[in-house]
Amino acid sequence: ELKSLLEDFHHADIAEILDELDLDDSVYVIKLLDSETTADILIEMDEDNREKVLRNLSAKEIAEEIEELDTDDAADIIAELPEERQAEVISNIEDKEHRKEITELLAYDEDTAGGLMAKELVKVYETWTVAGCLRRIRVQAKDVTRVHSIYVVDKKNKLIGRLSLKDLIVAKAEHKIADIYIKTVDYVHVDDDAEDVARIMQKYDLEAIPVVDSNQKLLGRITIDDIVDVIREEADRDYQMAAGISQGVEADDSILKLTRARLPWLLIGMFGGLGAASIIEYFNGEMGDFIVLLSFVPLIQATAGNVGVQSSAIIVQGLANDSLDGKIFKRLLKEALLGLVNGLAIACIALVITHFLFGTPYIVSITVGIALISVIVMAAMIGTFIPIFLDKRGIDPAVATGPFITTSNDVFGILIYFVIAKLILQF
Amino acid sequence: ELKSLLEDFHHADIAEILDELDLDDSVYVIKLLDSETTADILIEMDEDNREKVLRNLSAKEIAEEIEELDTDDAADIIAELPEERQAEVISNIEDKEHRKEITELLAYDEDTAGGLMAKELVKVYETWTVAGCLRRIRVQAKDVTRVHSIYVVDKKNKLIGRLSLKDLIVAKAEHKIADIYIKTVDYVHVDDDAEDVARIMQKYDLEAIPVVDSNQKLLGRITIDDIVDVIREEADRDYQMAAGISQGVEADDSILKLTRARLPWLLIGMFGGLGAASIIEYFNGEMGDFIVLLSFVPLIQATAGNVGVQSSAIIVQGLANDSLDGKIFKRLLKEALLGLVNGLAIACIALVITHFLFGTPYIVSITVGIALISVIVMAAMIGTFIPIFLDKRGIDPAVATGPFITTSNDVFGILIYFVIAKLILQF
Ligand SMILES: [Mg+2]
Ligand SMILES: [Mg+2]
Ligand SMILES: [Mg+2]
Ligand SMILES: [Mg+2]
Ligand SMILES: [Mg+2]
Ligand SMILES: [Mg+2]
Ligand SMILES: [Mg+2]
Ligand SMILES: [Mg+2]
Ligand SMILES: [Mg+2]
Ligand SMILES: [Mg+2]
Ligand SMILES: [Mg+2]
Ligand SMILES: [Mg+2]
Ligand SMILES: [Mg+2]
Repeated sequence: ELKSLLEDFHHADIAEILDELDLDDSVYVIKLLDSETTADILIEMDEDNREKVLRNLSAKEIAEEIEELDTDDAADIIAELPEERQAEVISNIEDKEHRKEITELLAYDEDTAGGLMAKELVKVYETWTVAGCLRRIRVQAKDVTRVHSIYVVDKKNKLIGRLSLKDLIVAKAEHKIADIYIKTVDYVHVDDDAEDVARIMQKYDLEAIPVVDSNQKLLGRITIDDIVDVIREEADRDYQMAAGISQGVEADDSILKLTRARLPWLLIGMFGGLGAASIIEYFNGEMGDFIVLLSFVPLIQATAGNVGVQSSAIIVQGLANDSLDGKIFKRLLKEALLGLVNGLAIACIALVITHFLFGTPYIVSITVGIALISVIVMAAMIGTFIPIFLDKRGIDPAVATGPFITTSNDVFGILIYFVIAKLILQF
Repeated sequence: ELKSLLEDFHHADIAEILDELDLDDSVYVIKLLDSETTADILIEMDEDNREKVLRNLSAKEIAEEIEELDTDDAADIIAELPEERQAEVISNIEDKEHRKEITELLAYDEDTAGGLMAKELVKVYETWTVAGCLRRIRVQAKDVTRVHSIYVVDKKNKLIGRLSLKDLIVAKAEHKIADIYIKTVDYVHVDDDAEDVARIMQKYDLEAIPVVDSNQKLLGRITIDDIVDVIREEADRDYQMAAGISQGVEADDSILKLTRARLPWLLIGMFGGLGAASIIEYFNGEMGDFIVLLSFVPLIQATAGNVGVQSSAIIVQGLANDSLDGKIFKRLLKEALLGLVNGLAIACIALVITHFLFGTPYIVSITVGIALISVIVMAAMIGTFIPIFLDKRGIDPAVATGPFITTSNDVFGILIYFVIAKLILQF
């Protein structure tokens, strides 16, 4: 009953339902349906929930699910298992070829082209005829959900070109593949970074891309649906990093997991705040009549933080899209100029409001204004420099936005503010 | 010479080169190459640069480029032209059918399925045979760069199913389409939101999706390459919004454009800072011996800002991925609890450092600690509530992160700090 009800749903929808159910019920459903369906469901489930379900299945049961999956998804699921179970599950896979291919894929890093590729693809030899080709494709294509491109290889399995199914249908039966195939084919190397693969596929509007080894031998292919997931995950991760959350949490995760992702960044911010406190404490004793300066600390701090985050976000994005060119020096100069423009505007408005509305002494308002301009320029430079610097060192510049920039700008901003105040007000 | 040199490049690469060249040189290259190539180049160029190039082409020249493009890209380019030129260019398109289709597409909002779809697709009637089908597809497919799916329609052009090219090749020639087509077909409505289309295509791993009107009539299809662009643009926009940058700027834009995108958010932050200044000014007079409290303003402010951004980022992402369920109340409770855990940790560390390292009086350290806990809980609640509230009102919750949250937390955080201090220290 339940079985026939669920059969009408798409596996991605069933996965969503299971993600909401208790573990017992999920396991019940998975055992109830045949592995042809449940394999696809497992792939679409939330990682945490899948892990729990798999813990309740025997190695043989898991192997049955694996049997139904494309090699890329199969390898991903096995890679999630504890090491001792991995071997057990693999040895339970009956299809020898499938087992060999999955084992090969397990060797690649998940953030590389090898970690994204599947062994399922359609390939033809340049020596075949169109007719023979169609005949053999009918056999090969059974294992391949969507054909996309047909890859043309030479006798040594070296990738030499491609062919679309459309080309093949339009061509005459007696033609040789060598006469009709397209010699320009985009490909990636098995060790290429996953995000680079995504950029290439987006740039050239590809639905699939072949993967080769260092000898140009065809190893597998990557399909766009997996790349879409890579792009979305990367975006989510960068967004979280900018907000000061270590990668990979969701709103529904446990409080412990969320704390572990969030507390470290709050601690960085706390140390910044304590640093600022020492600076204020240091100047506090000397300030005398100018104690009113302390009221403007939040203004200075908020402005420095906002400018820093803006500057770094633009640079981080430029670096990610590879759209940033030109010298660091020119970029810093531009940001400084931009800071000057924004700073002048902010400073003038703040001066008018504090002096005429709040009745702040003229000299103090001027001091705050000058400090604002300096702090904005400095924050813009720090926000520009840090991501570029990290990127040059091979560190993901995305960590530079958010709490990291805000905290350093808090400390430097307040320091600059008081140094300028001391110089102008001579306390 | 230059011509034959450029012929070896992919149009996306040439577009990148042109984006770096002077306008004169870009226009020269566009006029040099035939429109078959340049049309594709124009589509890949940066919007600003393309606009400038098009201003240097006559309506007839633009129409020639348009002639070479798929209808979706053609409509996008025409939509970018000033209104008076649009009609002129359209009337210069020679292919009547193409002209009619482009005009139809121009009517749809760019953020909807209609704005993303192309008229190019392969469709077959259920009454056709496989052999007849293959024959006609050979004709239709000439205009369609990639075939993806073949859509099956009834006599009234209503979408009733789909067929893959693979299915067609594997089927026997004398079969009827009615016997072999797949009756479950995902589709979207022409008015559906572009981001929803992206989510559907990602969820079901689709490479193309047909678009229908309210009578289920087949209007066009959307391909995954355009959806990948939608996903990336959405992610970039949300990232910039979280950083306090109004949508749509790049590092290479002019200082004026960048200022226009950034200054408004800095002004919001400035008003928050001035609000905080008034609060401090208000309490300052009464504080007496407890002037040391002012030193910890940056700590309070930084913590409130960081927590608020963390909480809102998780909620904004949950809303975007549709993965947020359950009542607001439960969610607020969870954030409050999370805030309590994080707050306790931060407060204890801050207490120890300020009292034992800085020599802050015990009662002041305790005050700061209690204020930190309260401020963290409050910031977490504000960060959770605002995006959910905006979303319910139909406003994009992504505007809620960044300066918006930081600023409100600055003001409320500092207010809470002094109120708590006043209560404990009785000044
Ligand atoms: Mg099962
Ligand atoms: Mg993998
Ligand atoms: Mg693209
Ligand atoms: Mg494109
Ligand atoms: Mg896959
Ligand atoms: Mg990244
Ligand atoms: Mg031309
Ligand atoms: Mg583009
Ligand atoms: Mg459009
Ligand atoms: Mg997907
Ligand atoms: Mg998938
Ligand atoms: Mg398109
Ligand atoms: Mg959005």
